[in-house]
Amino acid sequence: MKNQSLSIAVVQHDCDENRDHNRAATIAGIREAAGRGARLILLQELYATRYFCQSEACRHFDLSEPIPGPSTDLLSLLAAELQVVIVASLFEKRAAGLYHNTAVVLDVDGSIAGTYRKMHIPDDPGFYEKFYFAPGDSGFTPIDTTLGRLGVLVCWDQWFPEAARLMALAGAELLLYPTAIGWDCNDTDAEQKRQLDAWVTIQRSHAIANAIPVVACNRSGFEADDTQQGPGIQFWGNSFIAGAQGEVLAMAASTPTVLVHELELQRTEQVRRTWPFLRDRRIDAYGDLNKRYRD
Amino acid sequence: MKNQSLSIAVVQHDCDENRDHNRAATIAGIREAAGRGARLILLQELYATRYFCQSEACRHFDLSEPIPGPSTDLLSLLAAELQVVIVASLFEKRAAGLYHNTAVVLDVDGSIAGTYRKMHIPDDPGFYEKFYFAPGDSGFTPIDTTLGRLGVLVCWDQWFPEAARLMALAGAELLLYPTAIGWDCNDTDAEQKRQLDAWVTIQRSHAIANAIPVVACNRSGFEADDTQQGPGIQFWGNSFIAGAQGEVLAMAASTPTVLVHELELQRTEQVRRTWPFLRDRRIDAYGDLNKRYRD
Repeated sequence: MKNQSLSIAVVQHDCDENRDHNRAATIAGIREAAGRGARLILLQELYATRYFCQSEACRHFDLSEPIPGPSTDLLSLLAAELQVVIVASLFEKRAAGLYHNTAVVLDVDGSIAGTYRKMHIPDDPGFYEKFYFAPGDSGFTPIDTTLGRLGVLVCWDQWFPEAARLMALAGAELLLYPTAIGWDCNDTDAEQKRQLDAWVTIQRSHAIANAIPVVACNRSGFEADDTQQGPGIQFWGNSFIAGAQGEVLAMAASTPTVLVHELELQRTEQVRRTWPFLRDRRIDAYGDLNKRYRD
Repeated sequence: MKNQSLSIAVVQHDCDENRDHNRAATIAGIREAAGRGARLILLQELYATRYFCQSEACRHFDLSEPIPGPSTDLLSLLAAELQVVIVASLFEKRAAGLYHNTAVVLDVDGSIAGTYRKMHIPDDPGFYEKFYFAPGDSGFTPIDTTLGRLGVLVCWDQWFPEAARLMALAGAELLLYPTAIGWDCNDTDAEQKRQLDAWVTIQRSHAIANAIPVVACNRSGFEADDTQQGPGIQFWGNSFIAGAQGEVLAMAASTPTVLVHELELQRTEQVRRTWPFLRDRRIDAYGDLNKRYRD
């Protein structure tokens, strides 16, 4: 990082079927965050739409957009006006019939600093992403910005320590996860608690393993399944910012929130000197990580 | 696992300079655990001695022992008598001048089911292990027992998601970490809290990433540096048992404790069906995990 500290924000909000509403909520959140001093602003996964992956329907491909396109045009202007870096997650149309779940980074001058196409694609009831998104083909590559080298990943990636590690090994100075995750309302309270806790815990662990901050932005609100076949999803919010030892520095509840926190960037080097995990990795014995299973 | 549930115990205790005292505490703990129904019993790292790695002194090599040797002879008899599996951590003398930090597993008939030689070796003030222990050369290989396939790792390994993943990919049904970790008494309360929390969090994350239980056994008590050069270590105990979603099922405080908990082993398959991380790993894109750094 070029700076000793960095004020970071996450913009967590509900989404409805009106993209103008959603974009207005996002823009208001970005303006609030910048007004409160944030320089790096993380949006939630697929910020402009409801989470359409609850069902498989070809019409939902109409929600996709190219990069550059309407979202990046809008966010570029805002980034330049406010002189902030914005990390946004889009439903990208790359070619006819080829779509990705893509994060795009707008630098402080409004230029596109880079994109990251989600590498790990989920598929389970209510989260039918393998229907919509081709797996990313550009690997785990951080994105350089005026504010530093960003390890941008997306949602399902957060469960894979490999993704976080590869970003850290490539010099990422923090990890950013736009996310859309929530509860199946049919699950018990105990199961819901375990799931939320697991989601926070594994992301904090990436901070710990790599001694870099982790920032997660998740949407809030209930969204029904528009086919009426599923129970809908109660997105749990709980966006958070964790420091280089995985300590939670700020966390939202389950309602719309703009969370702002000042990160101390020199902590990474301090922590890595005390707990030098990168020194001790057994790279001579990790070959089987490239296997599906060791059988 | 052959069984639907498995009662597991950890034996956490203080150590002093008298090995007979330490072994007596361990044996009493094993007997208590077995009496309370435990079938798999995990001991703390280097259970028979003080944590001698606080300083570098050649005389400490006298504490090492061969495998089989005095500790395995003792523990074999106990395992067979009580019909339990015991996971013990020893200072192993492999050859003249060649020592390891080794976990040995005694099966219910008293036989040695296998050993694991610690792969990741720490070295930082108060934990001078690179002086004492050659890095393990037999990789991350689970150990088969009558009670199932055990992913036995040791202490510093707990910070490396790679180790946990490789054990899970080889079919480990749970992860076991004998540990010796504590606080530098010169650290602030806030730093001590962050360290303990990080230690719990990263181990819980291995349960989450792999959907298998994690069991950690750490020693308790204050041990002075016998060279008087360091501040000594307050070992923080807090041994714990976590389930397949990383949920903490049982946790000790910082005093000697025998912790017993019944694990439900069918949870792994249930959890992996809901969160199928093993299905979605991007093994085509993990090659650089075998690099020291991606520069």
